[in-house]
Amino acid sequence: MEAYVDNSATTRVSTPCIELINKIMREDYGNPSSLQMKGVEAEEYILTARKQIAKSLSIEEKEIIFTSCGTESDNMALIGIANAYKRDGMHIVTTKVEHAAIISTCKYLEDQGFEVTYLDVDKYGRVSVEDVKNAVRPDTILVSIMYVNNEVGAVMPIKEIAKVIKSVNPKTLLHVDAIQAFSKIDIRPHRDGIDLMSVSGHKINGPKGVGFLYVKDKTKIKPIIHGGGHQNGLRSGTENVPGVAALGLACELATKNIEGKREYLFGLRDRLIEGLSAIDGVIINSDVSHDNAPHILSVSVPGVRAEVLLHSLEDKKIYVSAGSACSSNKPAVSATLKAMGLDKTRLESTVRISLSEENTKEEIEYVIDSFKELVPVLLKYQRR
Amino acid sequence: MEAYVDNSATTRVSTPCIELINKIMREDYGNPSSLQMKGVEAEEYILTARKQIAKSLSIEEKEIIFTSCGTESDNMALIGIANAYKRDGMHIVTTKVEHAAIISTCKYLEDQGFEVTYLDVDKYGRVSVEDVKNAVRPDTILVSIMYVNNEVGAVMPIKEIAKVIKSVNPKTLLHVDAIQAFSKIDIRPHRDGIDLMSVSGHKINGPKGVGFLYVKDKTKIKPIIHGGGHQNGLRSGTENVPGVAALGLACELATKNIEGKREYLFGLRDRLIEGLSAIDGVIINSDVSHDNAPHILSVSVPGVRAEVLLHSLEDKKIYVSAGSACSSNKPAVSATLKAMGLDKTRLESTVRISLSEENTKEEIEYVIDSFKELVPVLLKYQRR
Repeated sequence: MEAYVDNSATTRVSTPCIELINKIMREDYGNPSSLQMKGVEAEEYILTARKQIAKSLSIEEKEIIFTSCGTESDNMALIGIANAYKRDGMHIVTTKVEHAAIISTCKYLEDQGFEVTYLDVDKYGRVSVEDVKNAVRPDTILVSIMYVNNEVGAVMPIKEIAKVIKSVNPKTLLHVDAIQAFSKIDIRPHRDGIDLMSVSGHKINGPKGVGFLYVKDKTKIKPIIHGGGHQNGLRSGTENVPGVAALGLACELATKNIEGKREYLFGLRDRLIEGLSAIDGVIINSDVSHDNAPHILSVSVPGVRAEVLLHSLEDKKIYVSAGSACSSNKPAVSATLKAMGLDKTRLESTVRISLSEENTKEEIEYVIDSFKELVPVLLKYQRR
Repeated sequence: MEAYVDNSATTRVSTPCIELINKIMREDYGNPSSLQMKGVEAEEYILTARKQIAKSLSIEEKEIIFTSCGTESDNMALIGIANAYKRDGMHIVTTKVEHAAIISTCKYLEDQGFEVTYLDVDKYGRVSVEDVKNAVRPDTILVSIMYVNNEVGAVMPIKEIAKVIKSVNPKTLLHVDAIQAFSKIDIRPHRDGIDLMSVSGHKINGPKGVGFLYVKDKTKIKPIIHGGGHQNGLRSGTENVPGVAALGLACELATKNIEGKREYLFGLRDRLIEGLSAIDGVIINSDVSHDNAPHILSVSVPGVRAEVLLHSLEDKKIYVSAGSACSSNKPAVSATLKAMGLDKTRLESTVRISLSEENTKEEIEYVIDSFKELVPVLLKYQRR
């Protein structure tokens, strides 16, 4: 038996996406900027992807900027908006539990003279609407808050946040890092009051090396990569046609029947919570209610170092992450878990289990059984 | 018969690269930042690609930064160096015939307070070593010059330029946009005095959506994309593993037997020059000597608009570019051809034929025969 439960780090590329990528690489390899047929064919794939994504989010095709990854989308949102609106103000609001792509970019902007407020979160990793409200000022140009936290699955109250921001300062824009939320939560940026939103291909069974940034029509934004003027001058560089086409398809597939998918994933997760909670020494860090995301579960075994647990599970072909694992090769202390108030022992002994709809009930039982077998042994070993 | 002779816009992905991409997408889809086996496997592909590229250029593995495309490599070289060295000076030297990824980024840097000198070129598109020498000042932090011009195939005297720059100002760095040169010219950055160099995957039968920037060891450079600290903090974002692996393989394959490849391409090109020159009304803009690159030929038919010629050739399944075609969807007047001194009529009637080693002698004869048939008809039609 094998259980790949590290789907928030990355997912397997779906077969329809692989087939599409192959067709384009083999046959329709033109440059979309070329004026001849080979170029026109290539451009068609990009237009189709725009249509698919626009439909999946009820947005307009022109509101999509293709990027090379979620990190680039986040960078473009923050730096692009900061540079476009700095005359209106130089204050940005975010949280302490954002992905490194946001935190590091905020640090960069601080070096450029911007002021950034990092909001606290509750014990489940959620920011409060009230705190956001109090943080927004007349010079706040941007609030950037993730929809689903990548380490514990906390769901931020984005719709309420959107409303409260505009009530304090109608000019303040809201960027949402939806990299872990897309396809797990029904998102309609226009309806939900989201001005910018980052999505990554490889988290939704699409390929690595491609993502997009939604930018609401009429929002000013500056490019961070300059060149031949592709994508209305907002992101130059020959489009990654196979990647973009597969991203479009992945978005279409991933947003089909979100409710059914949530139900299935909650089924798996709830069984996991039930099984793991029953083991002496195992603590669940995530909110176990359905307010949390259905696919991410943070688990600690105090006294057992995360890497030890991770490698013991690996021996059983169970693949999880230590910490967030899509940020860095070296397991640093997690800022998210720290902000949630976890003590040092728990901080060092936390793994993340992240599910996809490809996971089966049998795999979940296998994960539970493996924890049952391993945890007592590891705890005994660690204590010596 | 079909002749894809737009290889400087983009190339077909080679079969070994496609197979490698497939294997990774299907089986080895882990996140290289994950600590478990799936991650370690994924990271192995990146290490292998580093080795392949390092060997192909006689550089060190740590001198390679993977990017999402040639445009990003160019942006990172210019902005990354400008931000790292601005205390030493704010002057940059380049030429008037660089790719838009360089020119637009220079314009951006001018907005940030940098001064940029744009050097003239001769009638074949070449910059003179003397002009570079005269342009370098004590506050010149960077000279950025392409190795092979993308529109006409002019080869810049990079080795001489490298020497002359250091003789005037040993601190001035040399960035080379080698996107059209890689695999067509034997490049050894250490030997040739190159401090930074941009390469793109899809120009060398690798995939779109990936490239790299060579940065000489000990050179300071600032990231332009911030996040989880991937690639020593210089380019964050989950690595495009299939793309990077295929880029490594493409580099290995593309740099095998460069001399033999040049000979083959010059054979095709020289026959093309012979055949096209014999047609009334056809003018060759590129230097026809072997000082030029072997794979790019700029051709004008004064009186026939480039788009008309392009679409007439397209009807015969011959695919060429109008202007540079990897910059923009709309055919603007080419800065390169203008800098070479071409008059307005020729500027508007220029197409680029660009070869790869996949092109055959039969295809070249077919291109010549098609020009022979089309040019008199188009000239007659245009004159009415």
